[in-house]
Amino acid sequence: MQNDIVISTRVRLARNLAEFPFPCKLNDKGKNLVTEKVENAIKNSNSALCNNFKFLDLEKMSEMQRLSLVEHHIVSPEFISNTKGRVLMITNDNKISIMVNEEDHLRIQVINKGFDLEETYSLADNVDTLLDENLKFAFNKKLGYLTQCPTNLGTGMRASVMLHLPALQKSKAIGRIAGNLSKLGLTIRGIYGEGSEPKGAMYQLSNQVTLGISEKSALENLKNITEQLVNQEVITRDRLFKSIEAKDTVFRSMGILKYAKSISHDEAMKLLSNVRLGVVAGEIKDVNCETIDRLFTEIQPAGLMVKENKNLTPEERDIIRAELIQAVL
Amino acid sequence: MQNDIVISTRVRLARNLAEFPFPCKLNDKGKNLVTEKVENAIKNSNSALCNNFKFLDLEKMSEMQRLSLVEHHIVSPEFISNTKGRVLMITNDNKISIMVNEEDHLRIQVINKGFDLEETYSLADNVDTLLDENLKFAFNKKLGYLTQCPTNLGTGMRASVMLHLPALQKSKAIGRIAGNLSKLGLTIRGIYGEGSEPKGAMYQLSNQVTLGISEKSALENLKNITEQLVNQEVITRDRLFKSIEAKDTVFRSMGILKYAKSISHDEAMKLLSNVRLGVVAGEIKDVNCETIDRLFTEIQPAGLMVKENKNLTPEERDIIRAELIQAVL
Repeated sequence: MQNDIVISTRVRLARNLAEFPFPCKLNDKGKNLVTEKVENAIKNSNSALCNNFKFLDLEKMSEMQRLSLVEHHIVSPEFISNTKGRVLMITNDNKISIMVNEEDHLRIQVINKGFDLEETYSLADNVDTLLDENLKFAFNKKLGYLTQCPTNLGTGMRASVMLHLPALQKSKAIGRIAGNLSKLGLTIRGIYGEGSEPKGAMYQLSNQVTLGISEKSALENLKNITEQLVNQEVITRDRLFKSIEAKDTVFRSMGILKYAKSISHDEAMKLLSNVRLGVVAGEIKDVNCETIDRLFTEIQPAGLMVKENKNLTPEERDIIRAELIQAVL
Repeated sequence: MQNDIVISTRVRLARNLAEFPFPCKLNDKGKNLVTEKVENAIKNSNSALCNNFKFLDLEKMSEMQRLSLVEHHIVSPEFISNTKGRVLMITNDNKISIMVNEEDHLRIQVINKGFDLEETYSLADNVDTLLDENLKFAFNKKLGYLTQCPTNLGTGMRASVMLHLPALQKSKAIGRIAGNLSKLGLTIRGIYGEGSEPKGAMYQLSNQVTLGISEKSALENLKNITEQLVNQEVITRDRLFKSIEAKDTVFRSMGILKYAKSISHDEAMKLLSNVRLGVVAGEIKDVNCETIDRLFTEIQPAGLMVKENKNLTPEERDIIRAELIQAVL
């Protein structure tokens, strides 16, 4: 059940090279030097981990390719807002990625399916160690890793889980939960849109505190709270499915997804969320969560355009989105 | 195309026995005498037409059985509003029916699928002639057949066609058309609910004038106007299906009908109407009009209860309705 509700686990480490100013104070030449150093550190490593990296210059990508990276949660929206001197280093399986010259010189990210904080952190830690052999990271005994923004000082670590919480969203419990989480050093926010009803009922729960706390403590805290949220979601789902309305909503959503000839991004997200709930609850048996999760990503606007390899109007996307969904379901 | 839009053709003749006062002035004994005379006239007839009649005493039927007769357009709502002394005489195929002691002593009705005014009238006329051999109908040389309500005087004939006009309804043209029809001696009204958007976009077009006009003229007039309405509906449909929206609506309706776990009468009528439009337009190929038309009747509330043979709450009916639709589609 945990892996049905926790869609993915992510750990991100912010690191900076001691000998350079932060990217915002760097000129183009400086940024290129940083990139060169990181690239060499990867290429010169003897670890198998570093064999599969691609080096993608953001400036050489099309706008829709860049947007598609954001939709896949590989880079931040901030990373593509300015392409100058920014490079993405990423393994072929998209599991490990390094944003170079975003807010910090390096943002090392590891992403895994399901709920696995230990393994995800351990991999990020390995990459960090390997790079540290060739690069000198800015580190202060008292403050820990130095970062541009003080909120990342210390571990420089942001660990998060992506959660599908349709029952807690429908029951409006999520607002109350969000308020309590901040007291525990965590934050929860919608992945596709903020506000009271994020699209697809997809949420990201992450640690906020990086200073004066070890990575281990932060991960344990996040793990405990995630387990509590998962339990609450399960209980709320059970209560929900006692009524015919919930079952009806789930199946109608499936019917529309399978038959519509045009479907907007918002509506598709909502219906996929309903169907995913039905799959996990055992009501819908001919589709699995993996298929739905793949669709959640593939139906995003830029991804559709990359797939078709051309710019599309919103109306054209709605038609292609409906076709894609029906081909997959 | 005409038979896709014209669902059925109906002819109804109002007749009274000369030797009795109208039903509203008749006591129970008188009504029973009328019933006896009509029953004998049928039983004593040598015509094969009269072999298959059942004689159903309204008082001996359950409320839901009576309501189901109205839903099937076999009797009028007025006929079941008071059951005292009222009998329905009906052939096994439900094609010919006679309401005895409704507003008039006899209301002879013939109903046929599709668009066939000649054949339908001819059959009603045959039944009329056969009964007239044994019964003396109230007839006046100047006024024609005498009926309780003056609006039926003359031919006593009400001929009608049941039309599915979703495109004219969606385009709002139906209001304007209705206004013009009254000038031509015809009237159009929603079959399932009055108002601007009758459920299922099902309409009944019928002649209003019975005095000073022959049956032949009235039928010709109705035939001409029906053909014009059918043409207008076809043109409006073609225009409608140039947009992806119309196609999308049709397919979504199919998706919901195939997947919903609970569906109200109103919604089911609307969605079936959309799907029927899609079938006729050639967009939906795995269902035919006959199946949809059968569902239009079978999903009515009383019919569902007769089928299940028990009283059901609206919520229970919504669930059974969804199951029935999915079993048929």
